[in-house]
Amino acid sequence: MASADQVPFDDRGLAYGDGVFETVLLRDGKPVLWPYHRARLHQGCRVLGIELPADAELDACLDGPADGLEVLKIIFTRGSGGRGYAMPDAPRPRLLHRRTAFAPAVERWSGVDVCLCTLRLARQPTLAGIKHLNRLENVLARREWQRADIAEGLLADTRGNVVEATAMNVFWREAGAWWTPTLDACGVAGTLRAALLEQGRVQEALLGAETLIESSAVEQLFVGNSVQGLWPVRSLLTPSGEPLRRFAEAAGAWLQADAHALLGYPSLSGEN
Amino acid sequence: MASADQVPFDDRGLAYGDGVFETVLLRDGKPVLWPYHRARLHQGCRVLGIELPADAELDACLDGPADGLEVLKIIFTRGSGGRGYAMPDAPRPRLLHRRTAFAPAVERWSGVDVCLCTLRLARQPTLAGIKHLNRLENVLARREWQRADIAEGLLADTRGNVVEATAMNVFWREAGAWWTPTLDACGVAGTLRAALLEQGRVQEALLGAETLIESSAVEQLFVGNSVQGLWPVRSLLTPSGEPLRRFAEAAGAWLQADAHALLGYPSLSGEN
Repeated sequence: MASADQVPFDDRGLAYGDGVFETVLLRDGKPVLWPYHRARLHQGCRVLGIELPADAELDACLDGPADGLEVLKIIFTRGSGGRGYAMPDAPRPRLLHRRTAFAPAVERWSGVDVCLCTLRLARQPTLAGIKHLNRLENVLARREWQRADIAEGLLADTRGNVVEATAMNVFWREAGAWWTPTLDACGVAGTLRAALLEQGRVQEALLGAETLIESSAVEQLFVGNSVQGLWPVRSLLTPSGEPLRRFAEAAGAWLQADAHALLGYPSLSGEN
Repeated sequence: MASADQVPFDDRGLAYGDGVFETVLLRDGKPVLWPYHRARLHQGCRVLGIELPADAELDACLDGPADGLEVLKIIFTRGSGGRGYAMPDAPRPRLLHRRTAFAPAVERWSGVDVCLCTLRLARQPTLAGIKHLNRLENVLARREWQRADIAEGLLADTRGNVVEATAMNVFWREAGAWWTPTLDACGVAGTLRAALLEQGRVQEALLGAETLIESSAVEQLFVGNSVQGLWPVRSLLTPSGEPLRRFAEAAGAWLQADAHALLGYPSLSGEN
């Protein structure tokens, strides 16, 4: 395996999206939720049949001067070669990484508006959950809105079930508990989501897009990930900005406090 | 736009598969079915919202010494940048190309065995038909068989309809005519297929995988593309080699003669 800042023409990550990636919050050089990121990268490699990177090679992405908040992006491809889609005879996976200074959008911790994208995610159970490099659906969904007052876009699948936001997972409050969509057919299983599931703070369930819009049983809504924390959703809009529904105030809910504790972000005053 | 032989870390083709590609047969430097390749590349750019490459820039991929049969591969990405999935403010698409000496697998013109892959293609109408860089399904399907006597793998979608082969389109004979699967939910609309459709030599229809296996109405089967020509299918197997069914001899059928005339390949003796 080679570490580099570019890939050649025949890299399969470029040619086919044949690889996985991770986006990791670094705090003073220390990776946040690192075991979850490594576990998901490994799971992605197993699904795609790519040899796992050596721990030492992954850890080397963390070397460097510690400097406040950064985001580390890791790209791991199957490497070069093979005849067309056929595997290379001796694959040499390629690991790339880049660190960038980062500041979370703190103002969004108190509330955002999001839209419901019109694109429906295709259902491909084989690839569900892993953070692979085939992300055109996310790209196209992100193109659906231009308004600066829309912070994220929710995505439902072709059956009409809410799956995720373009770069975040979704959490909703119903019957006194917090839930997150089951990701057995599509979507990326975020590391913050994984940690909250493992701690028993959220549970998986199905959520129809129609239910999200119409049912008062869905009381509160968050979108979030492991670098930005949790954003409470005030209003759900169409991509062009027409209102679909409002949600009860969720800033300060214990789920946000728990999530932010995992990330080292402050807790807003609220239930806790 | 820049032409290069590698892409940087932040190229969106690498990061998200945010781009398209073409694989063009060159005969003595002249591109075969070039208008169809250009049209499909343009269509892909329109679907993804990427500015079309200038004709002069595309044509420059054809410059160079003419030397028998070659394959020209073109990769066209949205370029670098953007915050996450959001579009770059001033996208500068990136065009890459590479020419490689080529010889078609002539022995396969008289007949091959193919398998029916177990992976089912996800249905995403927005991306159907274009040759985008999100090709993990094709990669995973190609991993399903290792036997050298299996020349290709057929893919059905999650509804059980036959769509394509991993790197080829599918054609079958039924009721005295030639048909090719409708590609309105997934699959790549090949340029040879497009030319045969435009000439009225094939028509689009649905074909269930069960029908393909069980129905004697499906008499003959081809897989093919614009670089290899048409391969008549003798037997359909499982990925591990168990027989599913045999087809009537199709080598020399007029569809093969027509396809090979388009590509400048010889016609086998047969109906024509």
